[in-house]
Amino acid sequence: MSGFNFVNPVNFYFGQGKLAQAGTITAQYGKKALIIASDSAKPTGQLAALVDVLTQAGVTSVCFDRFMQNPLSTLVDEGATFAREQQCDVIVGIGGGSAMDMAKGIAFMACNSGGIWDYVFGQTPADSALPVVLIPTTAGTGSEANKTAVFTNPQTNDKKGLVNPLIYPKAAIIDPLLMLTLPRRVIAGPGADVLFHSLESFISKNAHPMSEMLSLQAVELIGKYLPQVYDDVTNIEAWEKVTFASSLAGMAIDCAGTTLPHALQHPMGGLLDVVHAEGIAAIYMAFMEFTWQSAPQKFAAIAKALGVNTLNMTEEEAARSSIDAVRSLLGYVNMLPSLSSLGVKEEHFDWFIGNATTTMRVVLANNPRVPDADEIRAIYQQSL
Amino acid sequence: MSGFNFVNPVNFYFGQGKLAQAGTITAQYGKKALIIASDSAKPTGQLAALVDVLTQAGVTSVCFDRFMQNPLSTLVDEGATFAREQQCDVIVGIGGGSAMDMAKGIAFMACNSGGIWDYVFGQTPADSALPVVLIPTTAGTGSEANKTAVFTNPQTNDKKGLVNPLIYPKAAIIDPLLMLTLPRRVIAGPGADVLFHSLESFISKNAHPMSEMLSLQAVELIGKYLPQVYDDVTNIEAWEKVTFASSLAGMAIDCAGTTLPHALQHPMGGLLDVVHAEGIAAIYMAFMEFTWQSAPQKFAAIAKALGVNTLNMTEEEAARSSIDAVRSLLGYVNMLPSLSSLGVKEEHFDWFIGNATTTMRVVLANNPRVPDADEIRAIYQQSL
Repeated sequence: MSGFNFVNPVNFYFGQGKLAQAGTITAQYGKKALIIASDSAKPTGQLAALVDVLTQAGVTSVCFDRFMQNPLSTLVDEGATFAREQQCDVIVGIGGGSAMDMAKGIAFMACNSGGIWDYVFGQTPADSALPVVLIPTTAGTGSEANKTAVFTNPQTNDKKGLVNPLIYPKAAIIDPLLMLTLPRRVIAGPGADVLFHSLESFISKNAHPMSEMLSLQAVELIGKYLPQVYDDVTNIEAWEKVTFASSLAGMAIDCAGTTLPHALQHPMGGLLDVVHAEGIAAIYMAFMEFTWQSAPQKFAAIAKALGVNTLNMTEEEAARSSIDAVRSLLGYVNMLPSLSSLGVKEEHFDWFIGNATTTMRVVLANNPRVPDADEIRAIYQQSL
Repeated sequence: MSGFNFVNPVNFYFGQGKLAQAGTITAQYGKKALIIASDSAKPTGQLAALVDVLTQAGVTSVCFDRFMQNPLSTLVDEGATFAREQQCDVIVGIGGGSAMDMAKGIAFMACNSGGIWDYVFGQTPADSALPVVLIPTTAGTGSEANKTAVFTNPQTNDKKGLVNPLIYPKAAIIDPLLMLTLPRRVIAGPGADVLFHSLESFISKNAHPMSEMLSLQAVELIGKYLPQVYDDVTNIEAWEKVTFASSLAGMAIDCAGTTLPHALQHPMGGLLDVVHAEGIAAIYMAFMEFTWQSAPQKFAAIAKALGVNTLNMTEEEAARSSIDAVRSLLGYVNMLPSLSSLGVKEEHFDWFIGNATTTMRVVLANNPRVPDADEIRAIYQQSL
């Protein structure tokens, strides 16, 4: 263990029915809320329920009526302008990772001038953001638990995270009751993302004892309970574990970051609007094969956390067994797509490689084995 | 898992040599520091080192030259008056739990009028405190990681905690290099306290999935590494684990509190100035015998975390084995005193029982099995 710093100032509210407290919680931070909602928050009635409890708590609200998966930075700018026009003093995000990231980005840009890319690349310091309250309606991104928000630059197709302590949510309301109507694909994708976040943060070169504890607990919970919610979306006890795992993994990546798979997925999201978890899933087996021998102790611990009986295995055997354990879990939730099935073609590889090795250089460097361009190409190729 | 809330806003700085950053860290919060130092911080040179790095970072400092174990609330009032007179805008505590708790109490009372007991019992609301930076020089109390500070009322001999989010330290600097000269008794006592905090928070009725994770990790680390630092005070790698465990346990009690042993120790500290960990250690075996059957799953997990091979045991066998595991660990570090050896006599029992069942009622209620007055007497009696 070498030295490390740790902080996570988010006020977490976990539990069934916690959405009902969103009004009183938000009222601690502002009087007029801008709501950023995912498309799904309307038909489920979640948005209406949120507006109700805000109103009951004396918080006026307006909704920013635009939403997109893999949100563009230009949309964030529009949202920030709207927040200023409407004189909102708190931002509430309800939805999956895209809605929550938009909420964070809008909260940030409402208080800062210029373009968000100046801040992403750290050239411009900032000292304020509106307070943010986040309410995940999928269990996967973990955005409610950290200071990162990912956007796509429409001019360059770069997909990149704004990472700034100012956008730590003031409060995260994690209500498993919001998960009970999710379609299977939106159980599987975000659920797989919890695995990806926890596994990658665990093996990351930036991992430390605190993040490792968070990561491993999340791996264990997601391995055990994701199949249960996939089999029965009404299994509320299992959803409690899965939603908790999602936030733990969100805390873990806040410490240790992600690694190779996220670096290689970002170009797919940026150029082809590939769904985050599906792009990552497509390359996961190739990533694990490429990496495990560089951190056998870590991969052995992953295997154990996923329920493999590693008692009579050598460390190498245990480490290798993590690959089958992950394949089995992803297979169970039907998350082993090929890159081709996601619209990726060999002709995209050059752009992907160039993009990953530049904008995602730091994330690539977190991997226990850092690939060169040829190795990245081979991983894409194997995953086609 | 029922619903639960979690927050811990402390900025943690873990690692060898982190004391050198105390100046720049403190400078983020103030320009003139009041230092609260334990007696041991002078001969070790730690106080001088702190003053140096503060000065280098442009932070003026004055030292409050009074310190006591089991600090009296009247001393806190004096410190707060001194802080106001000296116009200090940040409090830095360096030492064990008593110094850190004094720092928190002084930071609080410097901004609030009246007496601290009004706030302890929650009758008076407060809305500010000076920022606090804490630097533990023992590994045990975990005070650097939470919003509790314990004081003794000289009028009533009540020993009771101020629990208030305003006294979360802004920063906790946990430098294992500060432990390398600790005498054995100050390794064993605080080290045992880490066990007590983590075990009790784990079995507490207020435990939740986040606190359980923190507790169990701390149990595992202290079980493995406390004997190592006891055997060799210069074992810096082991100190890294022990100091980390101490902060984890401090975070865990922040969520879930402590239970019966702390409730029964407080009267000893209040009336007889018994050293915190020694008073608790004296009654620990009787507490475990009294309690384990009311939470067998929890005690079985404790046994496993302490390294007992529970694989072929029933849950009951595993749970019961935790008692021997704890006795063995406490015995290893010579922390199995009798109450008599600490100056406790049978004639004190009536006062202890009255005090514990009133001022520590809430803590007693955390225990999986809540004792009545006769059962408390029996626990004291068995431990005499």
